[in-house]
Amino acid sequence: MSRAYNFCAGPATLPEQVLLQARDEMLDWRGTGMSVMEMSHRSDEFVEIAETAEQDVRDLAGISDDYAVLFMQGGASSQFATVPLNLLGNSASADYVNTGIWSEKAIAEARRYGDVNVVASSAGCGFTTVPDQTGWKTRADAAYLHYTPNETIGGLEFDFVPDSGKVPLVADMSSSMLSCPVDVSKFGLIYAGAQKNIGPSGLVVVIVRKDLLGKAHVKIPTMMNYQVMADNASMFNTPATYSWYLTGLVFKWLKDQGGVSAIGELNARKAKKLYHFIDTNPLYSNPIDPRFRSRMNVPFILADEALNSAFLKGADERQLLNLKGHRSVGGMRASIYNAMPEAGVDALIFYMAEFAKERG
Amino acid sequence: MSRAYNFCAGPATLPEQVLLQARDEMLDWRGTGMSVMEMSHRSDEFVEIAETAEQDVRDLAGISDDYAVLFMQGGASSQFATVPLNLLGNSASADYVNTGIWSEKAIAEARRYGDVNVVASSAGCGFTTVPDQTGWKTRADAAYLHYTPNETIGGLEFDFVPDSGKVPLVADMSSSMLSCPVDVSKFGLIYAGAQKNIGPSGLVVVIVRKDLLGKAHVKIPTMMNYQVMADNASMFNTPATYSWYLTGLVFKWLKDQGGVSAIGELNARKAKKLYHFIDTNPLYSNPIDPRFRSRMNVPFILADEALNSAFLKGADERQLLNLKGHRSVGGMRASIYNAMPEAGVDALIFYMAEFAKERG
Repeated sequence: MSRAYNFCAGPATLPEQVLLQARDEMLDWRGTGMSVMEMSHRSDEFVEIAETAEQDVRDLAGISDDYAVLFMQGGASSQFATVPLNLLGNSASADYVNTGIWSEKAIAEARRYGDVNVVASSAGCGFTTVPDQTGWKTRADAAYLHYTPNETIGGLEFDFVPDSGKVPLVADMSSSMLSCPVDVSKFGLIYAGAQKNIGPSGLVVVIVRKDLLGKAHVKIPTMMNYQVMADNASMFNTPATYSWYLTGLVFKWLKDQGGVSAIGELNARKAKKLYHFIDTNPLYSNPIDPRFRSRMNVPFILADEALNSAFLKGADERQLLNLKGHRSVGGMRASIYNAMPEAGVDALIFYMAEFAKERG
Repeated sequence: MSRAYNFCAGPATLPEQVLLQARDEMLDWRGTGMSVMEMSHRSDEFVEIAETAEQDVRDLAGISDDYAVLFMQGGASSQFATVPLNLLGNSASADYVNTGIWSEKAIAEARRYGDVNVVASSAGCGFTTVPDQTGWKTRADAAYLHYTPNETIGGLEFDFVPDSGKVPLVADMSSSMLSCPVDVSKFGLIYAGAQKNIGPSGLVVVIVRKDLLGKAHVKIPTMMNYQVMADNASMFNTPATYSWYLTGLVFKWLKDQGGVSAIGELNARKAKKLYHFIDTNPLYSNPIDPRFRSRMNVPFILADEALNSAFLKGADERQLLNLKGHRSVGGMRASIYNAMPEAGVDALIFYMAEFAKERG
C-alpha cells in the first residue's frame, strides 16, 4: 500500500517529508556514523538538535525568554498530576473549566492534590458548547485557571482565550498546539502531548513562565519538577532523544509551510469545507455549537447507525483510515491536524458524498 | 561516513539489523500505509506489536505469569521515585545497597519518601568492589531491598544475586538487562531504562511480581501507579508507541542471536579480551576488583593523562566513538552492550595497542 490518509486522533499522521528525512538519516546522521537514537544526549551533535528544536518552537509560537520550554517524558496524562504538584504552592485550590472528557481527566487527577473548583461546565448539554465566560465562578486566590482549548474526543474548541486576570492561565494544548497563532504571553503554562501536531507519542512539550517555577510540592518526584527540568535544559536524566529529534523535524517542516499563520489558514479551510459538507448532506450530522466546532477533530454521526460498518469498510478500502469515533462516544471522527493535507480532506468528502448517494 | 563503532554508555549503539528494518518500515508498516508512530495505540496492528514485544521479552528473560511486564515512559531516574511510591506501602523503610553513582541517585530519591537504610556501601574504597553480603545490615521488615547489579559509570558489576530472604528484591538493571541469563523468580521487581540493551531512550521496562501491586501511596501520580499500568496493559494513556516498537525489534534480533545465553557468552568473551589487554599493556589500567568488573562498561585510564586528547582524537578518526569517560570520573570508558559486535572490541584493542606503541 502507498501512504494512506490517516485520520487518527493520536498518535496521528506525520508529514511525509519528516518521515522521509528520518528514514534517510536512520543509520547515519549527517556523517556521524550513528543514528540519532544512538547518540549521547550530552554530545555536541544531540545538544545542537535539541537546542535547534527549542529555538524553532520559540520562533513558531512566539515564545519569549520569560518562558522556559521543556521537553519532558510522558504526555498530557502525566501533566495532569505534574501541573498541580508544581503550581499549587501554598494555595490549596485551583480553578478548572470542564468542557469534555479530557477536562474531566485533568480535574480528577488534580483533585488528588488539592481543592479543585470547577468554575464552569458544559456537561449538562453533553459538552456541545463552551460556557460563556461571564458566568464563570473564578476565584482571585486560585493558584491557576486550567482549561482545555480543544477537546479531542468531543470535537469542541474554544474560539477565545479566557481572561484569567492575575491568576496564571494553564492550557492543555495537546490537540491544538501550533495549529494556529496563539498569544503565549496570555498564559502561565501550556502543555502539549506531542502525538497530534508535534511528533511521536512519549514526549510532552511544556511552556512555563519562569516566575511560576520553584513552587513545587516538597514530595514531587524529581523528574516531574519543572524547576529541575528547566535548570538542566530537560536533561536532568536521559531525555527521549529520538522523539525530540523527530519533533524538531516537524518544527522545521512547519516553518517550511509558512509557520502557524499559514497552517492556521489551511486548517480553517480544511475544517470549513468538511463541516459545510456534513451540514448540507442529510446522512451526516455534527452536534457541536457551530461557533465552537473544533478545527482539529471533526466528529460526525450517520443518520442510520446500521451503516457504520459499511462506511468504515469502504473508507478503509479507499485508504481513508481510522475514522471510527472514540470508544466513549461512538460514531465517526476525522482528525485533521496540521499534517493532514487538504487533499486528504477532499478525498474524505468525495467518499462521504459517494457513500451517501449509494447507501444514504 | 559508514557505520561507526559507538561505545557510548547510553543512549547506545543498536543492532544494525534493527535500524535497517526500522528504516524500511518508516513510511509504511507492512502495507498499512502508516508508520508505526502514526498508528493508534488501540489499533489491532499496534496491539499486536506491543503484545509480541511483551511475549518476546518474557521468552528471552524467562518471565512467568506471576509477573506483570510494563512498558512505561521515562527511565531509571523516574523509577527512583516510582519504586518507593509503589512498594513502601505501610512499611516506612527500605534497604538499599550503595555501589556507585546510580545507587546513590536511587537512594537520594527514595529518601524523599521514606526511611532508607543503606545496608552496605563500597563508597569507602571508591566503589571499586561489591561489599560481601555477609556484612550487610538488612532488616527483615524492610519493604524491599534495592541494588544496582551493574554500575554504568563505575564499571562495577555484581557476580551474584543477593539473597534477600522474604524481602522483595528490587534491581535497577538498566545497563545489564538481557545481557546474560538471570533468574527472574528471585526478584520482586526489575526495572531497566531502555537506552542501553533494549532500545531508544524514553522507555523503561518494569517487571513486577503481581503480589506487590496494589500497595501504592495514596498520592502517587496515576501515571506512576504500577497497578494502573498493569490493569491497562501499559496503555492507561498513550504509550511511547514507536519506542515500544523499536524495543520489540531489538528483542527479535536478540532471539535471532540465540537469546540471552548466547549473547551472555559473547559478552563475556568481549569483556575478557578487553580487560586482558588493559591488564597487560602498561599504558592502560582499570581500578576495579577483577571479580566485579562490569561486562558492559569498561572504564580505563591512561598512565599519562596528557595523552587523553590525542587518544580520543585518534579513536574518532578510526570511527571508534564516545570513549570519553563520564564527566564525573574522567578517563575513558568503553561500553560494550549486546549490540556492540566483537569486531568492534577487536578494533578498539587494535587501536589501543597501536596508540600505546606510538605514544605510550
